[in-house]
Amino acid sequence: MTAAANGGSAYRPLDHDSLRQLLASLDEVRPLLGGRPPEWRVREVGDGNLNLVFFVTGPAGSVCVKQALPYVRVAGPSWPMSIDRAFYENAYYQAVAPHVGGLIPRIYHYQRELCCTVMERLSPHVILRLGLIGGRYFPTVGRDIGEYVARASFFTSDLALPFERKFDGLALFAGNKPLVRITVDLVFADPYRASDRNRHTTPRLDSQVAALRRDGPLKAAAARWGEKFLCEAQALVHGDLHSGSVMVSEAESRVIDPEFAFYGPIGFDLGAFFGNLLLSWYSQPGHATAEDDRTAYRRWILGQAGVFWSTFRERFLALWAANATGDAFPASLFAAGSDAAALASAREAYVNRLFSDMLGFAACKMIRRIVGFAHVADFETISDPDRRADCEAGALAMARELLVRPEQFRSMEEVLSALPQVGDASE
Amino acid sequence: MTAAANGGSAYRPLDHDSLRQLLASLDEVRPLLGGRPPEWRVREVGDGNLNLVFFVTGPAGSVCVKQALPYVRVAGPSWPMSIDRAFYENAYYQAVAPHVGGLIPRIYHYQRELCCTVMERLSPHVILRLGLIGGRYFPTVGRDIGEYVARASFFTSDLALPFERKFDGLALFAGNKPLVRITVDLVFADPYRASDRNRHTTPRLDSQVAALRRDGPLKAAAARWGEKFLCEAQALVHGDLHSGSVMVSEAESRVIDPEFAFYGPIGFDLGAFFGNLLLSWYSQPGHATAEDDRTAYRRWILGQAGVFWSTFRERFLALWAANATGDAFPASLFAAGSDAAALASAREAYVNRLFSDMLGFAACKMIRRIVGFAHVADFETISDPDRRADCEAGALAMARELLVRPEQFRSMEEVLSALPQVGDASE
Repeated sequence: MTAAANGGSAYRPLDHDSLRQLLASLDEVRPLLGGRPPEWRVREVGDGNLNLVFFVTGPAGSVCVKQALPYVRVAGPSWPMSIDRAFYENAYYQAVAPHVGGLIPRIYHYQRELCCTVMERLSPHVILRLGLIGGRYFPTVGRDIGEYVARASFFTSDLALPFERKFDGLALFAGNKPLVRITVDLVFADPYRASDRNRHTTPRLDSQVAALRRDGPLKAAAARWGEKFLCEAQALVHGDLHSGSVMVSEAESRVIDPEFAFYGPIGFDLGAFFGNLLLSWYSQPGHATAEDDRTAYRRWILGQAGVFWSTFRERFLALWAANATGDAFPASLFAAGSDAAALASAREAYVNRLFSDMLGFAACKMIRRIVGFAHVADFETISDPDRRADCEAGALAMARELLVRPEQFRSMEEVLSALPQVGDASE
Repeated sequence: MTAAANGGSAYRPLDHDSLRQLLASLDEVRPLLGGRPPEWRVREVGDGNLNLVFFVTGPAGSVCVKQALPYVRVAGPSWPMSIDRAFYENAYYQAVAPHVGGLIPRIYHYQRELCCTVMERLSPHVILRLGLIGGRYFPTVGRDIGEYVARASFFTSDLALPFERKFDGLALFAGNKPLVRITVDLVFADPYRASDRNRHTTPRLDSQVAALRRDGPLKAAAARWGEKFLCEAQALVHGDLHSGSVMVSEAESRVIDPEFAFYGPIGFDLGAFFGNLLLSWYSQPGHATAEDDRTAYRRWILGQAGVFWSTFRERFLALWAANATGDAFPASLFAAGSDAAALASAREAYVNRLFSDMLGFAACKMIRRIVGFAHVADFETISDPDRRADCEAGALAMARELLVRPEQFRSMEEVLSALPQVGDASE
């Protein structure tokens, strides 16, 4: 596989008619919709930052079509953005599909020239972030996403692969620079400096944000995580695994939107998901009503955060024990029974490093969602700005603890028990 | 630049006649030699593991020509080896040349089809390893190579480059898989398991080597360094920076043979050089004579090891202070005077990590030269096997300390003062 490339001149944004034409030309898709193209109902539903998303429904069923736009959707055509990202999204799905089972949507067709993917329409799934705002329970989500990150990262790492295959992936995804650039700027730089792209709840957070941008130790810690993000090519990572990239029902979860994929630190995916659960926890007082103060729901969120990590940890170690087929920690070095203790201890140390990485990256993700360019609906939907600011301030304070005093947090218990102490707006 | 490729069918190993023809065709080379091709004296001088090396001398001067052979020279045609390595060697020289000044040879011509490079013939330089065996003093070598690693690694890292340029380099050098495979197998795997390619001074070291291959904590530590080698894409590294890849005179030093280049941990280059100085130190009693017991010379070696690290450290930090133009630790985050302390502390932590990395990788390099496939002349030229085994045993014992009890070695003083205590054969 060569390093990407979109279709150049053949690209055009899809409209209802051209989308119907495209789908009518696909033997694998027509029967899923049934009937004749004029009967197919097309609805554009994209609410993300970057893409067109269509649901197309026919008499027999429906599909979802995602197309990359040549600019950042939320910013408009003045912020151009490479449509090659559809290529990398597809390459990521291809790389992890053999390993993650039903935890991603079924992909029916990838159309390279149009930079679009025809995939399963997930129903009755909702975006996890919106479900969390609504106070809905998804019993399997922590376990599912823990399992997902374990499988997707383990099987693309040097623990499972001969390094030659990893280097091929490294070279391929090193082409996904425009998307990595977004993370480098919006996660690891802009939030910590003056930038026109930043915003925050003003004036309530003004002094806290000003303090953050003067906070040398905080900035140095964030910069260290930024350096790790660029240097630690541990596994193929999703690159944007927040609660808006997870669709859930009461029975299952699916991971979507991997266009930020590249070879990076496993903790970056762990931290994206974990940090967004913490953001949700901090946002909950803003969604409390007379009927539901969200106390029980917050407990459930923390429970899911714990299950997420413990599932990841347990599954990752189990996969490693069963599939040590890579060049890192080669199985042939530890063949004797007497090697078992040292190997087990090295594996523990490995996942303990991932735990620290998760917390550091989670903190960076939390901060950028409150003082940077792209905010989250968890807070944005809290209409009272004072109440919103209280919630955001708590999350910022916790993120600072995670970055500047990481030695406090050697276990999940220590993290979860700190939350109600650090800036909780409901107290 | 695309990912490598040799000339395919145009490749042939050079002989004296075809070499004269090639050089005669090069406008930039003819005047360096002077006279007419039949007057040029050709001598094959390759003593490394992988390549043909010719000195060609004419009336006006001489050049060195290095050509990759399609197999591992020391093993013969039964161990094939990609000739693309000449491409990566040249790509490495191109990448570092703007930064390292006179610390590499001048490159006159790279001939892609023949996988050969025409370069400056260094004279009166000798291979550092041979100089060390001979007990010769090279007053600038520690400082030169410290400076070299600082410059070559800093300017190819995320500290100096926009990450897009680093990712381009990462993708390019990810193609150098056959050479990286050698390191993965011969440095990080074979020495720790039974392999037909291994050998050691037998029977004297039999029990120590058997113990090493049963030593769970040692193997787990070595495996962790192997994993770092594959995952930590910090900078473009030489990949084989032992004392056989350094040519020295009393006035200066040059780094050669970068065909193992790839994006990896800076500590791997530091450790290769440092570890080989330690090997030399341990080998010295084997070269003692009635006239020279090598005591003073060993002191000089340790002095150079110290100068190597302190020069690297000081130069790396100075380059960083003056050229923070990369995406890691972006300068714009630390623009205020009040940020200086936190940034300085982050930089100290960064180079302290490099120090630990240097020691870990040095230990791996030391072990593989004593119990693995490719040994070093420092020990091999000690003809009395008992004496050789004593020297090797000391180096192995020190390497084990570095791997298994790294907390003893937080400073260069702690490392250097440990040497006479750990397995010194001269005591």
